[in-house]
Amino acid sequence: MNDLFADRVKNVPRSFVREILKVTENPEIISFAGGLPNPKTFPVKEIARATEKVLSNEGSSALQYSTTEGYGKLRDYIAKRYARIGLKVGKEEVLITNGSQQCIDLTAKVLINKDDGVLMEKPTYLAAIQSFSLFEPQFHTIPLIEDGVNPVMLRDILGSYDIKLFYSVTSFQNPSGISYSKENRKEVAEIINESDTVFVEDNPYGELRFIGEDLSPVKSYLDNSILFGSFSKIVSPGMRLGWIVAHEEIMEKLIIAKQASDLHSNYFTQRVVYQYLVDNHIDDHINRIRKLYKRQRDKMVEVINDTFPPEVKYTQPEGGMFLWVTLPEGTSSLELFDMALKENVAFVPGQAFYVKGGGENSLRLNFSNSDEDKIEEGIKRLARAVNQILSQK
Amino acid sequence: MNDLFADRVKNVPRSFVREILKVTENPEIISFAGGLPNPKTFPVKEIARATEKVLSNEGSSALQYSTTEGYGKLRDYIAKRYARIGLKVGKEEVLITNGSQQCIDLTAKVLINKDDGVLMEKPTYLAAIQSFSLFEPQFHTIPLIEDGVNPVMLRDILGSYDIKLFYSVTSFQNPSGISYSKENRKEVAEIINESDTVFVEDNPYGELRFIGEDLSPVKSYLDNSILFGSFSKIVSPGMRLGWIVAHEEIMEKLIIAKQASDLHSNYFTQRVVYQYLVDNHIDDHINRIRKLYKRQRDKMVEVINDTFPPEVKYTQPEGGMFLWVTLPEGTSSLELFDMALKENVAFVPGQAFYVKGGGENSLRLNFSNSDEDKIEEGIKRLARAVNQILSQK
Repeated sequence: MNDLFADRVKNVPRSFVREILKVTENPEIISFAGGLPNPKTFPVKEIARATEKVLSNEGSSALQYSTTEGYGKLRDYIAKRYARIGLKVGKEEVLITNGSQQCIDLTAKVLINKDDGVLMEKPTYLAAIQSFSLFEPQFHTIPLIEDGVNPVMLRDILGSYDIKLFYSVTSFQNPSGISYSKENRKEVAEIINESDTVFVEDNPYGELRFIGEDLSPVKSYLDNSILFGSFSKIVSPGMRLGWIVAHEEIMEKLIIAKQASDLHSNYFTQRVVYQYLVDNHIDDHINRIRKLYKRQRDKMVEVINDTFPPEVKYTQPEGGMFLWVTLPEGTSSLELFDMALKENVAFVPGQAFYVKGGGENSLRLNFSNSDEDKIEEGIKRLARAVNQILSQK
Repeated sequence: MNDLFADRVKNVPRSFVREILKVTENPEIISFAGGLPNPKTFPVKEIARATEKVLSNEGSSALQYSTTEGYGKLRDYIAKRYARIGLKVGKEEVLITNGSQQCIDLTAKVLINKDDGVLMEKPTYLAAIQSFSLFEPQFHTIPLIEDGVNPVMLRDILGSYDIKLFYSVTSFQNPSGISYSKENRKEVAEIINESDTVFVEDNPYGELRFIGEDLSPVKSYLDNSILFGSFSKIVSPGMRLGWIVAHEEIMEKLIIAKQASDLHSNYFTQRVVYQYLVDNHIDDHINRIRKLYKRQRDKMVEVINDTFPPEVKYTQPEGGMFLWVTLPEGTSSLELFDMALKENVAFVPGQAFYVKGGGENSLRLNFSNSDEDKIEEGIKRLARAVNQILSQK
């Protein structure tokens, strides 16, 4: 009965991470596998007050159908906020979406024909692989290095293949925690500017910097670019509110795709989040999240440093929610996963984040959703598994 | 620069109705063009109380990421509610979506390859044309008649072409107001059951019956079927909550498509709507909507009957939000639109609802979003335009 289904869904697997999350529902397991913000950071009371205000002042209008582009005042707020990182954006360049995941779907819908070239980072965001896969592109990959991507290699790839778009998470990438440096951003922009490739910059973690100074997105250095943003990491992921920034010509097609996909994003929630933003100090709120995540990241780095053998490498991200561990060549993180489960600790094996294989000796650790005590205990458990697997070699 | 875009978006126009809605923003115009519920029917206070309860009891959890399938209790509620119209549905057969518009997108994503046959009613729901178009099917059409579709013609079409799915709005269709009779539902089900075609039954208006008895959906008579539902017409459209009912094999693919599209629907709103449903008498609320819409529909029918020339035909729907007017052959509703605008009244010309041309002498009138006084005045204005265009012939 497989002919019932369209080709595009025949080979898309259910998310590996979802399967892992099921295993880790056991409360005795300390899980670094998920990718959730710490629920402590959710502004529950403030959202309650904002909702009350919206419903008592303009309830009927907030519950009615609205425009595909999204709530005008919220779009304007988002556009203006970019000034803080040196980006000039007009309200008409902002489309409200259901989280940045939908940004990927809409962008692929308007840009990708079957077999078009899509360049992905290696490793890359798992759900982006899934989302793009439904549009049946040819994937190409470029390895991430410490400060972004190698410009020579990028130029070479864009010169050798027809690459319609380059999907990049430029700040505190999921899964690696890597950020493109200021210099690398400029180099990448210069190369993209000389090409026909559209730079698709996904930036859900950019506000979560706790070390160093905020950087302008690559978009600020180039024209042929689409930028994604999200309230998931700074307000609430359950509300599913993100946005796309794109210039007029692409925006016109994105609006058609959005309209065909679900008419518009939840208008009630758009009104509530806007009310929350104007009635509160979002920068203070974000600073509190940054401080919390820095403590949790510092604890994770400290305990890894104390307990892991020196041949195990790991990133020390300056922000975001993830840390990336690389075991010695030839060590399987899938095998480690089974050993770690016996120690009641979980993570995501790295190969899930590779489009075309690779990463067998790597793993992703989430530090945002565990408090410091759990991080200490969980990393110690993981260290036992790591020492065990390395001693078997 | 047209090569920038994927083929699927090159020929999809912006919605005609959107363009019309812009024209009708002038407050002097009485508009029967939109398709909005009456905002008087929105349970604003009850939603405010439900939100307060959700946020004060389980705020952090309601603002966190959730499962792709949707809130379990809400899925269970939806499944059980179908018992009232004779349909047995399990919770695991329900997927929460962003309104029924997203149901179309997800269904097309999992079923439609380029050039697959899609059968549409003539006329049909405008945004469904747009949504399916992005998947580049071959459209076929079957005319709606008074009680549904002609069974002989349906059998003939399914025998003559490869039809992957038949998209049908079986109750109080938008735009025509037509409903499939009980007999016609059974006949259609019998024909579909003998074919490989999937019956896709969109039912956003089914609860809005104000004359006659509620009917079981066609799905209750067949296996190879997907059913859509929505809270947009009975609670709030701005909240964008709908659902798909499908059996396990299709559901598995729909969940993958949903996950790739936007991870999950707004969880906060799912929790709020569920709380609203359990704390209130939804059937009483729906009865109030039915009574209101019946008064408005009766007024529209009455004034049309009093003021339109007898050669103009119109449907007298037993529910829903729309009434369909057919002018004498050769009369252009596009021309009538311009004349009507001069009288400060608006509607949607019928040809917008045809996939492959037709309907030039028809128009859609919405009666849900105007009170009785406006309906009386607006229909009188429209009658002047109708009499004018017919006198010119």
